[in-house]
Amino acid sequence: MTASSPTALRVTVWNEFRHERHSKEVQAHYPEGIHTTIANFLREADLNVRTATLDEPEHGLTQEVLDATDVLIWWGHMAHGEVRDEIVERVYARVLDGMGLVVLHSGHFSKIFRKLMGTTCDLKWRESGDRERLWVVAPGHPIAEGLGDYFEIEHEEMYGEHFDIPAPETLVFISWFTGGEVFRSGACYTRGRGKIFYFRPGHETLPTYHHSDVQRVIVNAVNWAAPTPGKPRVFGNTPALEGNN
Amino acid sequence: MTASSPTALRVTVWNEFRHERHSKEVQAHYPEGIHTTIANFLREADLNVRTATLDEPEHGLTQEVLDATDVLIWWGHMAHGEVRDEIVERVYARVLDGMGLVVLHSGHFSKIFRKLMGTTCDLKWRESGDRERLWVVAPGHPIAEGLGDYFEIEHEEMYGEHFDIPAPETLVFISWFTGGEVFRSGACYTRGRGKIFYFRPGHETLPTYHHSDVQRVIVNAVNWAAPTPGKPRVFGNTPALEGNN
Amino acid sequence: MTASSPTALRVTVWNEFRHERHSKEVQAHYPEGIHTTIANFLREADLNVRTATLDEPEHGLTQEVLDATDVLIWWGHMAHGEVRDEIVERVYARVLDGMGLVVLHSGHFSKIFRKLMGTTCDLKWRESGDRERLWVVAPGHPIAEGLGDYFEIEHEEMYGEHFDIPAPETLVFISWFTGGEVFRSGACYTRGRGKIFYFRPGHETLPTYHHSDVQRVIVNAVNWAAPTPGKPRVFGNTPALEGNN
Amino acid sequence: MTASSPTALRVTVWNEFRHERHSKEVQAHYPEGIHTTIANFLREADLNVRTATLDEPEHGLTQEVLDATDVLIWWGHMAHGEVRDEIVERVYARVLDGMGLVVLHSGHFSKIFRKLMGTTCDLKWRESGDRERLWVVAPGHPIAEGLGDYFEIEHEEMYGEHFDIPAPETLVFISWFTGGEVFRSGACYTRGRGKIFYFRPGHETLPTYHHSDVQRVIVNAVNWAAPTPGKPRVFGNTPALEGNN
Repeated sequence: MTASSPTALRVTVWNEFRHERHSKEVQAHYPEGIHTTIANFLREADLNVRTATLDEPEHGLTQEVLDATDVLIWWGHMAHGEVRDEIVERVYARVLDGMGLVVLHSGHFSKIFRKLMGTTCDLKWRESGDRERLWVVAPGHPIAEGLGDYFEIEHEEMYGEHFDIPAPETLVFISWFTGGEVFRSGACYTRGRGKIFYFRPGHETLPTYHHSDVQRVIVNAVNWAAPTPGKPRVFGNTPALEGNN
Repeated sequence: MTASSPTALRVTVWNEFRHERHSKEVQAHYPEGIHTTIANFLREADLNVRTATLDEPEHGLTQEVLDATDVLIWWGHMAHGEVRDEIVERVYARVLDGMGLVVLHSGHFSKIFRKLMGTTCDLKWRESGDRERLWVVAPGHPIAEGLGDYFEIEHEEMYGEHFDIPAPETLVFISWFTGGEVFRSGACYTRGRGKIFYFRPGHETLPTYHHSDVQRVIVNAVNWAAPTPGKPRVFGNTPALEGNN
Repeated sequence: MTASSPTALRVTVWNEFRHERHSKEVQAHYPEGIHTTIANFLREADLNVRTATLDEPEHGLTQEVLDATDVLIWWGHMAHGEVRDEIVERVYARVLDGMGLVVLHSGHFSKIFRKLMGTTCDLKWRESGDRERLWVVAPGHPIAEGLGDYFEIEHEEMYGEHFDIPAPETLVFISWFTGGEVFRSGACYTRGRGKIFYFRPGHETLPTYHHSDVQRVIVNAVNWAAPTPGKPRVFGNTPALEGNN
Repeated sequence: MTASSPTALRVTVWNEFRHERHSKEVQAHYPEGIHTTIANFLREADLNVRTATLDEPEHGLTQEVLDATDVLIWWGHMAHGEVRDEIVERVYARVLDGMGLVVLHSGHFSKIFRKLMGTTCDLKWRESGDRERLWVVAPGHPIAEGLGDYFEIEHEEMYGEHFDIPAPETLVFISWFTGGEVFRSGACYTRGRGKIFYFRPGHETLPTYHHSDVQRVIVNAVNWAAPTPGKPRVFGNTPALEGNN
C-alpha cells in the first residue's frame, strides 16, 4: 500500500463480507474479502481508502467515518435485511449532502439503493456463466474514460431487463449476455447534492474485480462521484428578496 | 354531476381534509373540501371520479378502491405523519404497477411522494400572496395542452428553489414569483409502470383550484398519467433464451 | 380499406420507394412498396393515412400535405442525398410546430433526422440475418402498450452501438443481437413542439413490417407522437410583464 | 499573465469582436474585446488560453488551432451569418470528437449551436436592465461548484421562455428577471463525445464578464467540458463477435 496524497479523495469500501468467510469458492477469488480487493486497486489509483463491513460495530459506518468519506462503495447480497435502518438513514443523509455512492452488482437490492431510487430495483438473474459484453453508450462520459466501444467479461452472472429503476440521468453501459438478455449496466443519478453510480458486474464466485476494465470503471466512477464543494442549501420559510409584494 | 362514459378513466381524489373543517378562511374557498372542488371539475371533463379522505377507514384507500383507480390525486399538508405506513405501501405498489399519481402543492412532503422520489422534497416557502406566473417550458407536452406561453395566479403561496427532487424526466412548468424566486412547478416522473406528476399550485387559503388554467392542467395531467396496458413484468431467476452457453 | 373517423389522426407515410422497384427480393415482401404495407396496417388502426414517395413532385410533401399531416413516418435508405434541402426545411419547420415524426430503420441517416438530432447518427451494421430481441426498458410508456418483457424478430439486419445520437429523452427498447451487439432501438425526443420517435427494425429484404409487434409499436408511436394543441409560441422582443424596472 | 502548467486544459476563446470596435458603450466594459476579458480570468484559473476572432483568417479557427483546443468558448451576436459554413463544420466535427464547447449569451443563435441542438434556439428578449437572479437547481453539479442557492447580476438583458432548445440533459440554472420572466440559463448537453454548456449572461453593453460568479461558472464549465480520453468510436460494417449465426 502506498500513501495517498493529502488531497486524495477519501473512499470507504463497504462490504457485507459474509460469502467470503463461508465459501471456499468465493475465498478462491477474494481471500481477504471483496472489499480488500477493491481497496487495493483504488489505492493504486492514488485514492485514500478505508474499508468497513457489516459485522463491525455500526457496520463500520459511524458518523465520523461517513463525515470523512467523499465516496462510499457498496457491495452486499445475502444480508441486506441485517443492515440497520438508522445506519441506512445516516448514509442517506450523507448522500443528499454530497457524498458520492457507487453501488455494485447485488447491491441493487440494498436498502440504501432502493431508498434513493424510489423503486423495487428488481431484475431477472441467472447463475450460468454467460459471457457479458458491456457496450459503451455514453463514450464522452468521464466514467467511460479510457475504454473503447466495449469490454468483455468471460463469465458472469446474468442480470436482465426489466430492471425496475428510474430512467438513469445518464446511461453509460448496456450489457449483452450470451443467453439472450440485455441490461442497463452503468447508470448515473443525482439525489440532493450526491452523485450515485450503479455498476452491474461483480458476482462473488467469479474473479470480476480482478478484471482491469472493471477496475478502471470503478476508479472512474469514484472520481466522477466526488462531492462538489458549495454552500449549504437553505430550506424553509424565507423572506422576499424583492420588495414590491 | 353528469354520468361519465363506461370507458372513462377512474380517478380517486384523496384529500387530507383537515384545514377545511377547522378554518373559516379555507371553508370560504372550499366549503365541501378541496377534494370536492377538484372532483367537480374532473367530472365535467368526463372522468369517473370518487374521493377519499384521511379520516375515513383505511384513509378511504382500501385495496378495492386502489384496484379500481387509474389515477390518484393527492393533497395533504398538516397531517402527513398520520398517513399509515401500510396504506403508503399499498399506494406505492399500485403506482409501480401502473396507477398514475398526481401530487398537488403541499403534497410534496407526503410520505408517498418522498418514498417515490428518494429525496427529502424540501423547498423554500412564504405565505405572502406573491403573484405566480407559470411559464411553459415543454409546450409540446400533453400536460401543457391548450395553454399559451404562460398563465398567472393572482395570489399564491411562494415555493422556491432549491426543490430537493430528482431532476424531472420532463419539466413542464417553471414558476416566477413576485418576491424574486423561481420553482420547478410541473415535473413528470416514471416509477415502475406508473406515471407521476407533481404540480405546485394550490394553497388552502386561496381559490387556486377554481382557476381555469389550474383545472385544465390537472385534467391534462390525469389523462397523461393514465395506465399503459401491458403484460405483467417478470422478475427473478430465469432460464436462458439462447441455447449456446 | 375502411374509412377512418372524422377525428382520426392524419398520418403520411413517406417512403423512398427505390429498392422495391428494382429488387425482386424486396418486392417479395413489399410488392406495392414498404409505404403501402405500413399504410395498410395503420388504416386498420382507424388512422387516416396517405402516402408520399421520393419521386413524386416535391417528394409528395407539398406544404398542403404537411399542413394536413399530424404524424409523418419516414423510411429511406439509398437515396437520402436526393431529398431536396428545401423539402427537408419544410418538414423541419412542421416538426418544430408540432407535427409528430416517426423515423424507421435506415432513416437514421436521413437529412431530416440528422438535422433534428444534431449528430451524425452513425452506427455499426451487418446484413447477416441475426435474431433481434427487443427488450422493453420503459414498460409504462405508451409506445410499449400491449407488449410483454420483449419481442423477437427472427431475422434482421444488425445495428450496433455506438449509435451517435443525443441521449434519448426516453429510451423504450434495447435490442439484443445474436452476433453480440446491443442497440438503443426505440428512442423518444422532443424538438420544438414536435415529438420524434426513432424505431430501429425494418430492413427492406426482410418481412419485418408484417410482424404484429412491429406493427403494434408503430401504431403506438403514431398515437404518442400526435400534436398537442396549444397557442403559438411567441418569440422576440417583448415588453415587461411587471412594471417595476 | 502567468504561465499555465504543461497539463493545463487548452482553451480557445472565440469572439465575434465587432461590437467592441464600433461602440464606445461596449468599449467602456471591454476595451480589448470580450474575448480578452474572458481569456484573462481563465488564465488566472491556470488554464492555457488563446483567443480567436471572426475577422482573422479562417476566423482564427484553423484545423491546427482546433486540434490543439480542449474547450472552445463562443461569443457572437451581430454577425452569425458571416461565420463560414466550412468553419462551422470543422468545429462541429471537433465537438463530436470530444472537444468541449461553452456557448455564451447571444451565441444561442450561432450556426454551431443551432446545428448541435437541432432547433431554432429562439427566445424572448428585452434590453431593459432587469435584475437577473440565477437560481441553482443542480447544486451537486460541477458547474455549480462554490455557489450558494443563487447569485445576482444587477443589470442584464432579459432572455425569456419559451427557449426553443431540446430539454437539457442537466439544467443547472434558472434565471428570474424583474420584468416577470424566467429562463433556463445553464444547460448541459452531450453530442458525440463532446460536452456542451450554454450559459445565458453576457450582454455586450454591460459589465457581466467582470462579475465574479459569472467568471466562476465559466471556469467551472470549462473544467466540466474537458474531453474524456478514450479510444476512437468505430462505425460501419462489422463482423459478428459471436460465432453462431
